[in-house]
Amino acid sequence: MVVGLGLIGTGFMGKAHALAYGAARAVFGDVPAVRMACLCDAEPARARAFADQFGFAAATSDWRAVIADPAVDLVSITTPNALHRDMALAAIAAGKAVHCEKPLALTLADAQAMATAADAAGVATLVGYNYVHNPAFTHACRLIAEGVIGKPVHFRGWVDEDYQADGDLAWTWRAKRADAGLGALGDLGCHLVSMAVALMGPIESLIADTQIVHATRPMPDGSGEAASRTRTRPRPSCVLPAGRRGHCAPRVPPGAARTVSTGRCTARAARSSSARSG
Amino acid sequence: MVVGLGLIGTGFMGKAHALAYGAARAVFGDVPAVRMACLCDAEPARARAFADQFGFAAATSDWRAVIADPAVDLVSITTPNALHRDMALAAIAAGKAVHCEKPLALTLADAQAMATAADAAGVATLVGYNYVHNPAFTHACRLIAEGVIGKPVHFRGWVDEDYQADGDLAWTWRAKRADAGLGALGDLGCHLVSMAVALMGPIESLIADTQIVHATRPMPDGSGEAASRTRTRPRPSCVLPAGRRGHCAPRVPPGAARTVSTGRCTARAARSSSARSG
Amino acid sequence: MVVGLGLIGTGFMGKAHALAYGAARAVFGDVPAVRMACLCDAEPARARAFADQFGFAAATSDWRAVIADPAVDLVSITTPNALHRDMALAAIAAGKAVHCEKPLALTLADAQAMATAADAAGVATLVGYNYVHNPAFTHACRLIAEGVIGKPVHFRGWVDEDYQADGDLAWTWRAKRADAGLGALGDLGCHLVSMAVALMGPIESLIADTQIVHATRPMPDGSGEAASRTRTRPRPSCVLPAGRRGHCAPRVPPGAARTVSTGRCTARAARSSSARSG
Amino acid sequence: MVVGLGLIGTGFMGKAHALAYGAARAVFGDVPAVRMACLCDAEPARARAFADQFGFAAATSDWRAVIADPAVDLVSITTPNALHRDMALAAIAAGKAVHCEKPLALTLADAQAMATAADAAGVATLVGYNYVHNPAFTHACRLIAEGVIGKPVHFRGWVDEDYQADGDLAWTWRAKRADAGLGALGDLGCHLVSMAVALMGPIESLIADTQIVHATRPMPDGSGEAASRTRTRPRPSCVLPAGRRGHCAPRVPPGAARTVSTGRCTARAARSSSARSG
Repeated sequence: MVVGLGLIGTGFMGKAHALAYGAARAVFGDVPAVRMACLCDAEPARARAFADQFGFAAATSDWRAVIADPAVDLVSITTPNALHRDMALAAIAAGKAVHCEKPLALTLADAQAMATAADAAGVATLVGYNYVHNPAFTHACRLIAEGVIGKPVHFRGWVDEDYQADGDLAWTWRAKRADAGLGALGDLGCHLVSMAVALMGPIESLIADTQIVHATRPMPDGSGEAASRTRTRPRPSCVLPAGRRGHCAPRVPPGAARTVSTGRCTARAARSSSARSG
Repeated sequence: MVVGLGLIGTGFMGKAHALAYGAARAVFGDVPAVRMACLCDAEPARARAFADQFGFAAATSDWRAVIADPAVDLVSITTPNALHRDMALAAIAAGKAVHCEKPLALTLADAQAMATAADAAGVATLVGYNYVHNPAFTHACRLIAEGVIGKPVHFRGWVDEDYQADGDLAWTWRAKRADAGLGALGDLGCHLVSMAVALMGPIESLIADTQIVHATRPMPDGSGEAASRTRTRPRPSCVLPAGRRGHCAPRVPPGAARTVSTGRCTARAARSSSARSG
Repeated sequence: MVVGLGLIGTGFMGKAHALAYGAARAVFGDVPAVRMACLCDAEPARARAFADQFGFAAATSDWRAVIADPAVDLVSITTPNALHRDMALAAIAAGKAVHCEKPLALTLADAQAMATAADAAGVATLVGYNYVHNPAFTHACRLIAEGVIGKPVHFRGWVDEDYQADGDLAWTWRAKRADAGLGALGDLGCHLVSMAVALMGPIESLIADTQIVHATRPMPDGSGEAASRTRTRPRPSCVLPAGRRGHCAPRVPPGAARTVSTGRCTARAARSSSARSG
Repeated sequence: MVVGLGLIGTGFMGKAHALAYGAARAVFGDVPAVRMACLCDAEPARARAFADQFGFAAATSDWRAVIADPAVDLVSITTPNALHRDMALAAIAAGKAVHCEKPLALTLADAQAMATAADAAGVATLVGYNYVHNPAFTHACRLIAEGVIGKPVHFRGWVDEDYQADGDLAWTWRAKRADAGLGALGDLGCHLVSMAVALMGPIESLIADTQIVHATRPMPDGSGEAASRTRTRPRPSCVLPAGRRGHCAPRVPPGAARTVSTGRCTARAARSSSARSG
């Protein structure tokens, strides 16, 4: 059996998908081979260049042509978030399997509409929560489910990427509400939520806050500054969890630690727990 | 110049205060010598034994006798939190300097009353926020104040001690609202707040939640179980900060990490940020 | 341009080579595409299965057929060490480019004969010292060459893999002198030497010692025990470098640390340097 | 019972001894109290100042006066290494207990003479190998002795302090053969040897090498440069242990790592072991 891959998007994640599908059979053995059928980038020349580089048979600048290509069995969507819904719904309507990157959609209603359509069509789907498929992670889930480490009382996860930390970096679609929707929350926080649900079960209640770190960023063409999304807080934020649930674990001594991040660096200090006596 | 120390409390922190005051002049050189004048423990035999061990000239089971002792210039209070206010007010009234452990009091009103009394009496006071006097920490404050690392946008601190993580451990005063007041929040979280304020400035707004991890604990005498403080949540908690403010720092690669704590252990996994290209 | 790959060997490194050559153009862009031309495993059925899994056009159990295949431009040799010389010499004689895994040969004379033959034939060759091509490593070499971190006075490298640590694991070719030649020294130590030379320059003098950790191992078929190579030392070994050249580096505080390894585990303790005063 | 302490030397280790003896009874409880009886520094004013700071009853610039002082029961020797022998022999001759810092002497013959004299006199002695008395270390020894972690096959210890790493730092007695004897080997390496023997048993054979990192150093008074000890090697050194004995341990993943040290910094990189399959 051979699966024909249609890839929409050629950025960081498009490249990652092309590499992963290309290596899947060599790595896992007992899975179908994947044929690189059709690749789409909005710019025709770029689509052709990446099709050549990534080894795709066909290139197009029209994402609907990927879905229409009879050689395509599986549509991989790695475009800016605002485009996910229409592409996924079209692929589902065409009866193609869909692998859509996270976050699935800009709104809950859109995500639910996509899930409903996929269920009705009976096509196979996958959202790009890759962390929860990591063998070490599924092993952790199994250990917890089997009670090996006891009853979980607390999960602490954090993610902080550096690729937009510098406020002098130009705007990208990731910083625009219309394209990206949820900022770091949708881009990265959704991974933590996927892991929290997998490890700890459904979420019952929530308290949360958000912050726009850089209120403005330069335009990519240098023509000025673009305003950030509407809600901005001028003060730095803090996260301060405190508890008496810690145990000595590899690289997690009980005790205290802290980091301070600026647009330029992250500094850290730690103190291991002192021995307690008397 | 010699300062006479009166120490109230002989537990973990009482021992720490005795050791620290005893070593202060040898360590720092340019500070007064300290004479171990009078020690108090509620139990007379224990008071005498610790006075002998810690090198105090006198022992008493009446904390008011410590304050009244003319050889005592400085009263160090390391008792359960509920006792701090009365002891500190009495010492202030007697014109003695006061070193009171954190948390200062069970309520804001009590803490303010203590501060007002100390100001009126003009006595020297110190609350046991020892982290913010650590030379590495004051150096970090200085670097931030001088702009060396840029404008801080986020502070992440965490503290998780293991000494009550096991739900089979018996009750202590630290788990009783009447004695301890604020649980882990007052015991440990106050250190994080002291550091956040020192590094980042005053707190302007707050969202917060608390959890009682172990709803009941065995009585110390084995006579049954004691109920926890009233508010209990049966579900485990999660803390999930996500951002794009991270930079590569010693031991803090940008990326994701997570821990799961149970009553028995803390397990951890980490992923460094993948290189981004294309 | 397309390069035809002939791969000899289907073990851990054979799979790694197949994956790496298959992904090279997608990852780097400005390199030729690679066509998986011919794969060899000594067992015919295994050769066919891996050719199918790794995506090779042809399969053979005769390594000379790989070299003779006109679709093969580049021969990748990932077989047990004792086979490297004859395979490489044959490929060089056929005018094919050769990528040979480390250690290049069992003896210095063999390695020199291979290098001489390659020079004479003018074919491109590569030995599998992959560490020294890692971008972080070449960056380190550049920093040292440019004097950015000062004049190096000491290089400390260590490598200790776990895949043969357990003495109850059966014999493999890696533990046989006739097949593997140099044991851990040739298998892993050669990586350290390649890095030491790249970072620090040619080696001028050497003191060294070796140890056979497990004197015997079970036969793979359970038919008894095989004796280890001739030289065995019954006492555990120690490595104890001590110096006053350390500086605080990420994850490398000055100070002391130590590990103890057994056939079952490695245990570690560390002490950071105390502050020095007075 | 009260033990009278006579301390010879007021440097880093002199201060450490004064602090440790002063805190011993408060920390351990079931040990005699220590009275700070007499302190010696070669310079009278400095002796008086430190006696005041460290809380000693008497001060002298004549080390023989410390030993002769009837209030002194225990003589603590923290002077440059070349002075250890005569001071220890004199204290032993006077029937005093002796705590001598490491290295015990400049030569094996001197060390043996000191041990013989102490045995003959029947006085209590202690050499400052403090690491092997650390509770975590003695616990490790116990685990090994009881076979809990299996039969040790390898011990890897390293120590690298930064306090003389910079070649522009002036000469101290630690860099002079007549005063220090053995350089980093005696200063730091002896700790590793003490641990290796405690963990692994007696040493049966040895291969070793030494290096003088900085051939010259400035004179403390700026009057020029002093030549290093006679044996100097102009090339940097490497330590390259390689094995297949590793197991995953907290902070010690199997795999490879390396550091490069210069006079200015230590840089590090690491690679965790890749999963092996196929």
